Amino acid sequence: MSTVGRTDNPEDHPRVKAVFDDIRRTRGSDFINNLWHYLAFDPGLLEQTWAEVKAVMGAPSALDPLTKELIYIAVSITNSCTYCVHSHTAAARAKGMTPEQHADLLRVVMLAAKTNQLANALQLPVDPEFNADHGR
Amino acid sequence: MSTVGRTDNPEDHPRVKAVFDDIRRTRGSDFINNLWHYLAFDPGLLEQTWAEVKAVMGAPSALDPLTKELIYIAVSITNSCTYCVHSHTAAARAKGMTPEQHADLLRVVMLAAKTNQLANALQLPVDPEFNADHGR
Amino acid sequence: MSTVGRTDNPEDHPRVKAVFDDIRRTRGSDFINNLWHYLAFDPGLLEQTWAEVKAVMGAPSALDPLTKELIYIAVSITNSCTYCVHSHTAAARAKGMTPEQHADLLRVVMLAAKTNQLANALQLPVDPEFNADHGR
Amino acid sequence: MSTVGRTDNPEDHPRVKAVFDDIRRTRGSDFINNLWHYLAFDPGLLEQTWAEVKAVMGAPSALDPLTKELIYIAVSITNSCTYCVHSHTAAARAKGMTPEQHADLLRVVMLAAKTNQLANALQLPVDPEFNADHGR
Amino acid sequence: MSTVGRTDNPEDHPRVKAVFDDIRRTRGSDFINNLWHYLAFDPGLLEQTWAEVKAVMGAPSALDPLTKELIYIAVSITNSCTYCVHSHTAAARAKGMTPEQHADLLRVVMLAAKTNQLANALQLPVDPEFNADHGR
Amino acid sequence: MSTVGRTDNPEDHPRVKAVFDDIRRTRGSDFINNLWHYLAFDPGLLEQTWAEVKAVMGAPSALDPLTKELIYIAVSITNSCTYCVHSHTAAARAKGMTPEQHADLLRVVMLAAKTNQLANALQLPVDPEFNADHGR
Repeated sequence: MSTVGRTDNPEDHPRVKAVFDDIRRTRGSDFINNLWHYLAFDPGLLEQTWAEVKAVMGAPSALDPLTKELIYIAVSITNSCTYCVHSHTAAARAKGMTPEQHADLLRVVMLAAKTNQLANALQLPVDPEFNADHGR
Repeated sequence: MSTVGRTDNPEDHPRVKAVFDDIRRTRGSDFINNLWHYLAFDPGLLEQTWAEVKAVMGAPSALDPLTKELIYIAVSITNSCTYCVHSHTAAARAKGMTPEQHADLLRVVMLAAKTNQLANALQLPVDPEFNADHGR
Repeated sequence: MSTVGRTDNPEDHPRVKAVFDDIRRTRGSDFINNLWHYLAFDPGLLEQTWAEVKAVMGAPSALDPLTKELIYIAVSITNSCTYCVHSHTAAARAKGMTPEQHADLLRVVMLAAKTNQLANALQLPVDPEFNADHGR
Repeated sequence: MSTVGRTDNPEDHPRVKAVFDDIRRTRGSDFINNLWHYLAFDPGLLEQTWAEVKAVMGAPSALDPLTKELIYIAVSITNSCTYCVHSHTAAARAKGMTPEQHADLLRVVMLAAKTNQLANALQLPVDPEFNADHGR
Repeated sequence: MSTVGRTDNPEDHPRVKAVFDDIRRTRGSDFINNLWHYLAFDPGLLEQTWAEVKAVMGAPSALDPLTKELIYIAVSITNSCTYCVHSHTAAARAKGMTPEQHADLLRVVMLAAKTNQLANALQLPVDPEFNADHGR
Repeated sequence: MSTVGRTDNPEDHPRVKAVFDDIRRTRGSDFINNLWHYLAFDPGLLEQTWAEVKAVMGAPSALDPLTKELIYIAVSITNSCTYCVHSHTAAARAKGMTPEQHADLLRVVMLAAKTNQLANALQLPVDPEFNADHGR
């Protein structure tokens, strides 16, 4: 059950096929998960979303691939996104996340949410020592 | 302006003093940030909160200290916690976060929120391939 | 599965029947969706909720009906409300939302969430030019 | 006070200057709001963010410019993003939002949040009539 | 700084004056807090909002007044609403909340957020024993 | 379907068995709900989580047990946590929550979310009268 229909034979559409081919090539796998199948209802949106996912998560950058997945999961948990928690926990595991690292991620995510509530409840002033905006 | 008063002379209270001493010792710094000053209104809550922060963020674990700070920031941004975003960005920088890593963190946090919205909007079914609960 | 039971024969209760009759009359349809069936456990809550939905979404106002549905969906996505995303996407479609408008809604909702994360991460000061509170 | 420093003389950097020039040209105004000044710490992030804002909010699309601003505000309110609520309320007003439309936006945003809470509290099943995924 | 201007001489408008008079009478105090002053820009919205606050928070109901304030604060913390956290913490204190009860509220709010993250992270199935919807 | 596997024969592990025994003893029931079964993948996380739930929700404190459950539900609804809304609504009912109290809880939770949106939309200044931080 979803708010748009899953596209039948999506690869009959050349722009969709080009994205699907790039997903397979980039990931080295034939598996195309549901997000891309359902996004096929709008090829422009599909292209833009995949381009950004590939650029941010797939290209070498200042943070290593597993760290990026852990950050992704942390946001997805906090936003209560069922699909994203599932897909990115699977991705993190595929990139080597151990059960101990998973438990550690949960501990940090839980502690952060807990102290977020505390600080939002106290509405305490930010220490000037934390200001990165020197001279202002 | 806050919802509880900042405690005057908090270290006159022995339980508060013990926590403050442990914060200074653990961090190797004389700086006690506002969270602990304002929490001093309830020594039990102060002790429990510090004990958990110290255990999760301070003790060696499966994830390295900087990765844990990045996850902490990601949750705090998503929960819109002004105080926590400030304090943990400062902490991450103190643990070596470079401007390039900071920008990369922002990119992942933004992408995750973006696809969280997309998946929540489409309400698409989770692929069975993501299930970690074998046989159920 | 739900946290309250669906009421059996809800229209045996005159206050529930009056609300259901008004829903059918207002919408010109015999379909009563689950929200109202489950709310029937408390007729007062049912009456108040329907009265507000009817007044805000059903009566002519400064914004047209489809725009109001798009705004409703945007909030529901952000709050991760499965039921509301489903029911209001269906409502928007019934009021004429095209697939192109749906994709455009998704683009704006995703961009907004993305820049919300960015601004919350940077904690940047609000430009005085945005202040609508003249002279204060 | 912010988590990154506002860049001094940002237009000394050619990539930053190119973005700032494009913002001025696109908007027909000399005013560059703080978001872009603070983002200048990472030219790549600045370029990507502006490119997406320009494409989604600035280019003609299936939804009119004011409707897109109202949706943007709705998400920003729900995510509690102070900066974005301010900047996009100002933008909506610049695009013609009347006080009556503003009040109507608030009414819809409030009602949506209210029924989101209700549906999340009841955890009621989604009516099969809302399913857009025919045959699945 | 706000997104609408504070109304000058709001009580020159008879509908605004009627609401302000009722607020003073209901609360037995001359103090009208900012929410109502800023809402005066739209008398209809002012009337509806006050009517609901008065009915839900002011009238005797199944929960006592302090319990209702504690629930209100819990939601406001979780939504990161600065104004509401301040105004309802003050209201709870005016209705007798002790520092010990405040600390206890914080403990529950923090624990709930923590386990919310855990359950959202694990995506575990709901036990059938929790279903209130008998026979379905 | 979940992101970690449900542990088979969890009580073969002595640390898991000790927690499960304490849950049964504390609650006076043989029923162990899914949260604890799935947490068994990491005995340390299981022990810490149960210890905190037991201390905060199970021990006598400044707020009575039912009030604490209502606060817990309010946070869980706002965070859109399906599992927690189910488990704590069941817990509140077991502690005596009546249908009238449930409806009243919903009314307060809905009103709070509604005015949170309003205050976040208006970005109105906090009245100095609400400041608890005397002299600062």
